[in-house]
Amino acid sequence: MNPATQDTIVALSTPPGVGAIGVIRLSGNDAIDITNKVFKGKDLTKQESHTIHFGTVRDGDKIIDEVLVSLFIAPKSFTKENVVEISCHGSPFILKQVIKVLLSNGARLARPGEFTQRAFINGQFDLAQAEAVADLINADSEASHEAALKQMRGGFSDQIKALREELIHFASMVELELDFAEEDVEFADRDDLKKLIHNLHEVINKLISSFDLGNVIKNGVPTVIAGKPNAGKSTLLNALLNEEKAIVSDIAGTTRDFIEDEINLGGINFRFIDTAGLRETTDTIEAMGVQRTQEQMKKASLIIYLVDMANDSVVEMNKEINKLENLGIPFVVVGNKSDKAQEDIKTAISKIKGSVLISANSHENLEALKDRLLEVVNLDNFKSGDVVVTNIRHYDNLLKTRDALQDVLNGLGMNVTGDFLAMDIRQSLHYLGEITGEITTDDLLANIFSKFCIGK
Amino acid sequence: MNPATQDTIVALSTPPGVGAIGVIRLSGNDAIDITNKVFKGKDLTKQESHTIHFGTVRDGDKIIDEVLVSLFIAPKSFTKENVVEISCHGSPFILKQVIKVLLSNGARLARPGEFTQRAFINGQFDLAQAEAVADLINADSEASHEAALKQMRGGFSDQIKALREELIHFASMVELELDFAEEDVEFADRDDLKKLIHNLHEVINKLISSFDLGNVIKNGVPTVIAGKPNAGKSTLLNALLNEEKAIVSDIAGTTRDFIEDEINLGGINFRFIDTAGLRETTDTIEAMGVQRTQEQMKKASLIIYLVDMANDSVVEMNKEINKLENLGIPFVVVGNKSDKAQEDIKTAISKIKGSVLISANSHENLEALKDRLLEVVNLDNFKSGDVVVTNIRHYDNLLKTRDALQDVLNGLGMNVTGDFLAMDIRQSLHYLGEITGEITTDDLLANIFSKFCIGK
Repeated sequence: MNPATQDTIVALSTPPGVGAIGVIRLSGNDAIDITNKVFKGKDLTKQESHTIHFGTVRDGDKIIDEVLVSLFIAPKSFTKENVVEISCHGSPFILKQVIKVLLSNGARLARPGEFTQRAFINGQFDLAQAEAVADLINADSEASHEAALKQMRGGFSDQIKALREELIHFASMVELELDFAEEDVEFADRDDLKKLIHNLHEVINKLISSFDLGNVIKNGVPTVIAGKPNAGKSTLLNALLNEEKAIVSDIAGTTRDFIEDEINLGGINFRFIDTAGLRETTDTIEAMGVQRTQEQMKKASLIIYLVDMANDSVVEMNKEINKLENLGIPFVVVGNKSDKAQEDIKTAISKIKGSVLISANSHENLEALKDRLLEVVNLDNFKSGDVVVTNIRHYDNLLKTRDALQDVLNGLGMNVTGDFLAMDIRQSLHYLGEITGEITTDDLLANIFSKFCIGK
Repeated sequence: MNPATQDTIVALSTPPGVGAIGVIRLSGNDAIDITNKVFKGKDLTKQESHTIHFGTVRDGDKIIDEVLVSLFIAPKSFTKENVVEISCHGSPFILKQVIKVLLSNGARLARPGEFTQRAFINGQFDLAQAEAVADLINADSEASHEAALKQMRGGFSDQIKALREELIHFASMVELELDFAEEDVEFADRDDLKKLIHNLHEVINKLISSFDLGNVIKNGVPTVIAGKPNAGKSTLLNALLNEEKAIVSDIAGTTRDFIEDEINLGGINFRFIDTAGLRETTDTIEAMGVQRTQEQMKKASLIIYLVDMANDSVVEMNKEINKLENLGIPFVVVGNKSDKAQEDIKTAISKIKGSVLISANSHENLEALKDRLLEVVNLDNFKSGDVVVTNIRHYDNLLKTRDALQDVLNGLGMNVTGDFLAMDIRQSLHYLGEITGEITTDDLLANIFSKFCIGK
């Protein structure tokens, strides 16, 4: 935690496995000196920042690899310490040997996220931004990427810090009153304070409610396709998957393992739940199937209710819709088999708000269905540029802040004394400060950074 | 093939998957210009070679990532062309987006090995060195790493080129004679030529015979543990594996998936064949087991014959050793269960040259066994610094060169005319030249580089 005594850490920063190149990163006071000890080429200690040098890494007389060494001299680096990046041939054997020789020359292995932690401690960015670095690396959809990038670049932090500053001003006014307690003065106008707290409350509520969307952006939408046997549930799933597969372009090394049953629509991942069941089932063991579907639906954030327009009856359908309404989870009524539909049910579905008529079999009207699904998850809110909370830690702290602010309001309503008021305001400040890291504990930091990958 | 018209190629150069960072590499005339079009930061076209620049990669107004761009200006780069390396956050999603925007700005996807192929074409190194780059990346033992590094740094190429130059001198002399054919002069002294060819023959034979070792270094030693049921075969295998596991140090990202049944001893990988069988068998279905072992032994380069000194008889053992001798594959006689050994068999084994007495159960004397195995594969030859042929293409060409040189010798013996002699010498030169790439065809190059990984 003390920047003055930071030792030099080392780790592989590129993904494990065989590749053309692998990059080993060092950070710390002695990063350049340690590298220089094992490097044969120019004297690295005499080079400028942001320059690259060719040479060999050696263990004694033995050459381990021909490498390119990139130098970043403090504070012009990611961690604001001296940083060296050694670009080696991408063989795990070589990378291990290079790391070993650096270890035996005074570096130590970095803990997960330790580079980013040092960047935070040295003031490169605040805690919410540091967390966004991890989110950015793990972003696997356009929306999650955009949200993480926005957060990393400080959008969210700015908003939190602005709230905090307004509150700090009032807190100090109230605390000033305490110094003059016997004189019964009021430096902080109670009406102004009340107005401020109301405003803060509103902004925080907006952030809190953005978390539903944020969660969707970050983790995808757990979705269930419900419907009677033979309604075409697996046909629909396959049709959606195949359309996506067809448009996924392959650039070697950049394609993640294709996740069966996760479909990216308009930048949002929809995770289809228990589709294995959908696939396996021959729809004969109906009883079990129905019970299972009920359980799944409770885990879903979105239900696609697929109606077999060729065989289902309007009465039954209405019963099902009734059940879905009671469940309280957003759902979309989708009429399937539009080519052989009965007129009455087709008409009935058309009248339901937000319904879609498709033929899963012939891929008809799937675009309209996709648009409708995106509408339901409310992506528009995100695109408008508003800050969206995607991190559950931030969400928790916002909830706690809201509670503390409510206490302040209650206190104001009951005309409590300044010292009580100050305590509650400080509590709000504490929770807000933990989001951006103005207030931290070792536990908090350890908890956050241990979830990072090694080398970041 | 024409350096003048080289377009700009792009690929991910780090391994696929999620990591702290991922590096995208471009090479070609327009590498810097293309990057500059999507980069917001300093004007990259005005920066010096071997410098690093922070900024953002954008697709229009949209930021894809914050990156570090490294510049290598021709000819001071790996390919001797303009090269740019973009260090991004290691998210497959981001890397794909960055590559996409580079593609739409004029780069094209690199083929496997195309960076190295360009480096070869532009004279950075010869073909044997280029091939060593791939070997280096795939090296997974100390010996294979050392052999590849030596080859990449030109040790092997120098030897081949020296041979070739001597031969070229004579070829041109002989060919000069052809211009004066009517005057019946001899510029090339036939005795000197004979002596030279003999010398070349010797050097090439040495290289050819080094391939046995080279193959072991590169691909490991297929090894069989033979012996009667209950001799302790699986106990020995597990003892060796466990000792290795205990000394494998774990540096995140640098440890390959542990290969069951491959054991690294003193820098050489020993691959134990059909150890699954060893493990499964309860040694009851003996007949099948014996037949299977016979088949395995034929595939092995090394046989460990494990004798159960507590139960086996000397007569039987001698019969088995007799069979092994007829098989013609190197074998080591290992007496197991030294703690409960019968005296006669213990004495008999002790007298066999190169035998080892162990107790697999209590891990006794395993070090001696390891030393003995290394002795058999003759690693000493390698450590002495001699050039070792590890590449089967080179081996093939050396065999062909030897045949062609034999033709030259035969011709000399029969006093054939200069034009026939010249033809055979040219043939030798051709095969030697293909090794280092003085002589290439598109097919040859395509065949070599298509085996590289993308981004190298």
